[in-house]
Formats: sequence, C-alpha cells, structure tokens
Amino acid sequence: VPAPGEDPSRDGALGPDLRPLPGARNLKLVIEYDGACFSGWQSQPGVRTIQGSLERALGVVLRHGVVVRGAGRTDAGVHAWAQVANLYTTAPVDPERLLRSVNGLLPQGVRVRTIGVVPLGFDARRDATGKQYGYRILHRPGPSPLREGRVWHVWGRLDRQVLAAELGTLAGTHDWTSFRATDCTSPTAIKALSGAWMDVEDNDVLVLRFRGEGFLKQMVRVLVGTAVEVARGKRPPGDMRRVLALRDRREAGPTAPAEGLYLERVEYPGEEP
Amino acid sequence: VPAPGEDPSRDGALGPDLRPLPGARNLKLVIEYDGACFSGWQSQPGVRTIQGSLERALGVVLRHGVVVRGAGRTDAGVHAWAQVANLYTTAPVDPERLLRSVNGLLPQGVRVRTIGVVPLGFDARRDATGKQYGYRILHRPGPSPLREGRVWHVWGRLDRQVLAAELGTLAGTHDWTSFRATDCTSPTAIKALSGAWMDVEDNDVLVLRFRGEGFLKQMVRVLVGTAVEVARGKRPPGDMRRVLALRDRREAGPTAPAEGLYLERVEYPGEEP
Repeated sequence: VPAPGEDPSRDGALGPDLRPLPGARNLKLVIEYDGACFSGWQSQPGVRTIQGSLERALGVVLRHGVVVRGAGRTDAGVHAWAQVANLYTTAPVDPERLLRSVNGLLPQGVRVRTIGVVPLGFDARRDATGKQYGYRILHRPGPSPLREGRVWHVWGRLDRQVLAAELGTLAGTHDWTSFRATDCTSPTAIKALSGAWMDVEDNDVLVLRFRGEGFLKQMVRVLVGTAVEVARGKRPPGDMRRVLALRDRREAGPTAPAEGLYLERVEYPGEEP
Repeated sequence: VPAPGEDPSRDGALGPDLRPLPGARNLKLVIEYDGACFSGWQSQPGVRTIQGSLERALGVVLRHGVVVRGAGRTDAGVHAWAQVANLYTTAPVDPERLLRSVNGLLPQGVRVRTIGVVPLGFDARRDATGKQYGYRILHRPGPSPLREGRVWHVWGRLDRQVLAAELGTLAGTHDWTSFRATDCTSPTAIKALSGAWMDVEDNDVLVLRFRGEGFLKQMVRVLVGTAVEVARGKRPPGDMRRVLALRDRREAGPTAPAEGLYLERVEYPGEEP
C-alpha cells in the first residue's frame, strides 16, 4: 500500500486503495483551514500539513492509525472553506463527540466542520466530480486589517468589466500548460473548466471563481495573475486565449499570492450544485 | 481645550471644540480595524488604542500635532469596517500620498481605507446622524479557522426564527438601562433604535444588525447575549420587552463576546442609506 504522499496524480484520479477492516465505518469530514498555517494539504515529513495534523489528532481519539483521504491537495498557503475527506474507523465513536474531541486536539488554523457516517463505498477523491475555487481580490485604496491574509490587495487601475470578460473566455476543455507551475507533475495538462466568472462582494472584493473537474498546480493563481495584468492594461483584452494556445508558462503572467485563494466546494453526484 | 479623552459623552454629542488654523484643510478618514489588537478607540495613556495609533502616525507624516475626532468610541475588542473621523491639517500633503504613508506607519490591525478633503465645517462626531452595528454569530457544529476572532461561535439549540422575531420587538425610543454596562457613564440611557434585524450569510453566519442614533456601552453585546438566551429556549419569546421595561441590567442576559461585533457604518446627512 503506497503512503498517502505517493499518489502520482495531483487531483481527481485514483489514489491508494484503502480497504476497510471488517466492522469499520466510513466517515466523511468537511474541513476548513487557514492555508497560512500549513505547508499545504499533503503529509510530508518534518513540516506541518493539514493531512498530517488531521491524521495525528484523529489517531489520538480513535486509538488506531488513520489515513485521511482528501478530495484533492491544496498548495502551501491556500485556504479551504470546505475541503472534503474520508477515513475508515473501527472505533465505536459517536461522530458529534469525535468532532469535538478532534477539534480540541488540532493545531490553530484547521478545524473539522462536520463529520458524518457515509456508505463504505464513498471515496472523497475518486467520487468528486468537480471543485470550485474562489480567488479574492480587495480592490480599494487602503488594505483591510479584518481581511489580512484572506485577500490579495490590489490598488490602482483594474478594469472590472475587462476582468470579468477575460474570465468569460476561459471555459472549456483545454491544455493548460501555460497556466500551471513549471514543477507541476500531473501527467496531463488537459482539464475541463466548466466555468470562470467574477462576483463582487461589499463593493470592493472581487471574487474570481473557477469551477472544473480538476486543477493543476498553481493553475488558478496563474490564471488570476494573468487576468489582473489584462485588467490593468498591461496586456490587451483577449490575451489569455492567446497565451492558452501557446502552451508556454513563460507567456502567462505572475502567480497571484496564495493568500487570496480558497477551495470553496467539492462536488459529488447527487448533491445540490 | 480638553484632551481628546475627556469628552464626557460616549457617542453622538459634542466633544472638544477643534478650531482649524488659518489655511487648514479638513480631512475625512474612513478607518478599518481589528478590535482584538487594541484597548478600544479612545486615546489612553499606557495602552494601545486606535485613536492614539492614528494620531501618532499622522503626526509623523504631517509634522504637527494631530487630534483625530472619531464618530464614536468603540470598546476594547470591537471591530470596525468603517469608522469615520476627521482632522485639521495645515500640511500641504496630497490625500492619496498621506493614505499610503500613514498606512505604512500604523501598527498591525488598523488601516485607513480612504482620506478625502471635506468642508471645514464637517465634524465626524457632531454630524453623524446614526450608526449601524452588526454582530456575527457562527451557528454550526465546528468553529471556523478562517473567521477566528471575527465571529461568536455558538452550537446547539438556537432557533433562528425566534431570534429574528425577538430582534423585531426592539425598535423604538426606549430607556436601555437593562442593556448597558453597569459602568456606562452616558448621562442618558434613552436612545432611539431605528431598527434591529437578522441577515444570514453563507447559511451559518447570523448577522444581527442594529441601527440607531447612538448606542450605550456594551448595549449591542447585552442585547445579543439576551436574544441568544431566548433563541436557546432559556427565556420565553418576548422576554426582551419585559427586561427592557424593568430597567435593571441584572434582568438581561450575559454580554456577548466583543469579537463578534462590528461598527459597520456611520451615517451622515445626504449620504445614501
């Protein structure tokens, strides 16, 4: 059985085969975290990760080794409103009680929102049909102390209509080579993006949203960094389609800071959109 | 001229008379802060306050002593999205440049959002016709790392309809003695509350909003603490009106934590509601 860190695909594909022991239950966890507190989702030796922190805290309460299977990895610094994971346990613990115990043991920056018992066949990674990310840009003169570490603060020229229009050109199944980290190890750069759009909150928070079957390393952040260059007039409108066609990361803009990025939703069949 | 800390009224009334020097301009500041970083708004010796921090930073940039006149005080721990203040300056500084310089000098937790030049007669405190506070309750099983220090986390019984209905009984001009801090020094407890209602954000954030001409020390927090007791079934529906009539702080519920409370808006004549 490979260790949790050895799954070769970033996102969406099959990972290690975790077979439940007889009498085990399958628990689905919804998890929120502040990405600034962690070196990403995935367990790694010597650094604090969300998966590692969860496995340690759950192991203490359940009194057995725990493998937490997340719907997908998030990079260092990226937040999650609702990451989804599952785990098998033979411990006869009440979910509501487990929630409280685990939250009391977890380090600052991560908490379990809900724990539910699901069918043994449910697999948080394999069964996910899509994900939604939101990237928050604060567009106003002064920064926001109440949103520090939660938004990318941008001031000066930023044409909101151009920004929204640029996002509107992106949906579709494309080769996203131009918009992924150069060290991204995913075997394919072809992913279906079902939508990209902009919502505005409280007048000055621009939320750039991306929904798709799967995402490559830093894909959303490079898309945002490039779209902002278009909205600032540093690139002509429509430039993202040109960059997309070139399949060259050097043609895209800078990677937007991780602090603005949130995994907002993991989609499963039969759940409301 | 009395020092900024000596204004006897909490909120809304006239404070020290600040006469501008010849050639001075009047600057209006909109300020955001994380209440957890400060011992309240008002300058006090030996502790970090928002007013004190602003006066120090502005004094460095403007190269003269500065008195920052806030629309109203906020208690220790209470946040502000948009506190309003004004100050007189004889320095020939560009507002946008001043904004950047001051924000570079301010301590963590407070930033100026905007600075504008206003008529000499504008007085942030005297001219304010009303204020709006919002109190955020997170009602779900697990706490929220991304909203830590920004909401009051409550789980278990909490009837949202009862909560909203209870708020709906409060509007009017009343003697709020039951709902103010026992050490509140305001000469009158009679204030007009023009509205109290509940908004729901993201399904599980209940925002209890209060709009009125002025507020007493801890008034919103005692109102929230009492309303939550009604919604939890510890008090019968309608109990807040009974407590109001008794004019006795001991009849009301506990003071809700400061971390959920935000000064959301200060109203001035001629501004959109």
